[in-house]
Amino acid sequence: MQRYFVPAENWQQNGVLIKGDDAHHISRVMRLKAGNEVICNHPDGQAAICEITEITSNVVRTEMKEWLHASNESPISVTIAQALAKGDKFELVLQKGTELGAAAFIPVQAERSVVVWDDKKAEKRLNRYAKILKEASEQCHRNKIPQLQPVATITDLIEQSHYFDKKIFAYEEEAKTDTFQTFAQSVAEIKSGDNVLIVIGPEGGFSEQEAVLMKQAMFSPVRLGPRILRTETAAIYALASMSYHFEELGCE
Amino acid sequence: MQRYFVPAENWQQNGVLIKGDDAHHISRVMRLKAGNEVICNHPDGQAAICEITEITSNVVRTEMKEWLHASNESPISVTIAQALAKGDKFELVLQKGTELGAAAFIPVQAERSVVVWDDKKAEKRLNRYAKILKEASEQCHRNKIPQLQPVATITDLIEQSHYFDKKIFAYEEEAKTDTFQTFAQSVAEIKSGDNVLIVIGPEGGFSEQEAVLMKQAMFSPVRLGPRILRTETAAIYALASMSYHFEELGCE
Repeated sequence: MQRYFVPAENWQQNGVLIKGDDAHHISRVMRLKAGNEVICNHPDGQAAICEITEITSNVVRTEMKEWLHASNESPISVTIAQALAKGDKFELVLQKGTELGAAAFIPVQAERSVVVWDDKKAEKRLNRYAKILKEASEQCHRNKIPQLQPVATITDLIEQSHYFDKKIFAYEEEAKTDTFQTFAQSVAEIKSGDNVLIVIGPEGGFSEQEAVLMKQAMFSPVRLGPRILRTETAAIYALASMSYHFEELGCE
Repeated sequence: MQRYFVPAENWQQNGVLIKGDDAHHISRVMRLKAGNEVICNHPDGQAAICEITEITSNVVRTEMKEWLHASNESPISVTIAQALAKGDKFELVLQKGTELGAAAFIPVQAERSVVVWDDKKAEKRLNRYAKILKEASEQCHRNKIPQLQPVATITDLIEQSHYFDKKIFAYEEEAKTDTFQTFAQSVAEIKSGDNVLIVIGPEGGFSEQEAVLMKQAMFSPVRLGPRILRTETAAIYALASMSYHFEELGCE
């Protein structure tokens, strides 16, 4: 059954109004009719099966049939702070990261980011990112759309970091030391319900200065497996591994 | 240090000849000079640090300095049989799967594959796939380039399956049953050194008939985490989880 995230103001006593692109998707792409059912998701994470009662050109009216109680949200709230990188890598991380259960994303302007965040193009870019997050959440039946937070530097991240129970950064140089910390050792310190921040550098990695600052702020440098991963693969590896650890192995 | 996979015939007693695109990459892209070092990989998995002695327009001559003994290969030999899918999804699986340690890939013509394998275009396509595998292997410092095997149907896979110690297929329907098998349960049955086949369906999933045939042939249907993954994310999830299990957690 198709799932749509519907803004809070469109939830009524006994039904949900679906508007805009989603109404178009229902009528023109899915070609649904009155009597068909869809899943509507409230931004707070709740979801209900709703029956379509009327389709007009830009509004789909529905009647609520049944609240759904299943949740696919990860027991760990993982925020991915991903350095801006060339091409569509950041967008790949948003899409795959949503499927893999990330709670939030922060675009990071790292020292060695080749791409520079352009405030003039920011609105258009943020809208595209929001669309990717919403569509990926609907497709993989998430209860919540991951949050997209404002662009940050490593210094900004450190200032915000008191919010997190565990802070990790992928550090290629770490893998070259004899005493490197494996990702598994860091994951073992995480408990169900924790807020975790995972910081991934750009193509050229973190600068020494950034690494020193993060270490001082008690961010754990880790190796993500034995091979050198591309920047966009690192976030995907971390999220898939944590899903496996907590949702498949059932560790708490 | 830059790594190049060099065909067996270019390995000499005390040095390695690097030709073609790689010679161009060394002289024009990396702009290396005589005296600089590169890592040369033999197709058998061995690697050596080699010093450049001469660069001509299409051949780079090197002298072998030191054999490398580190290996980044996974302790489990995983073959990903990935159904053909729209767009560049198969290529994404090749690139990311190589980083994540896959040993081989098989393109699968599934019943519901929207894309049909075109024998006329096969040569060009296979060359592109080979290039992706080689470049990804060099970038992530693999010892071996994963194999690309001929396109196969589910029936073909079943016929070849006696080679594998464990056969798994991602089955969305499985996740809807109360007695679904988690991926972790299947992974727990795998031992270091095993040959594992993981079969991933196309966008529309496997047909009922395909699922029945695979079950009869002792392929284990599994759920890959609690969310519904896109076809290209499923292979990535499986490989990252197995890398985490065997290479990070160190399970045997």
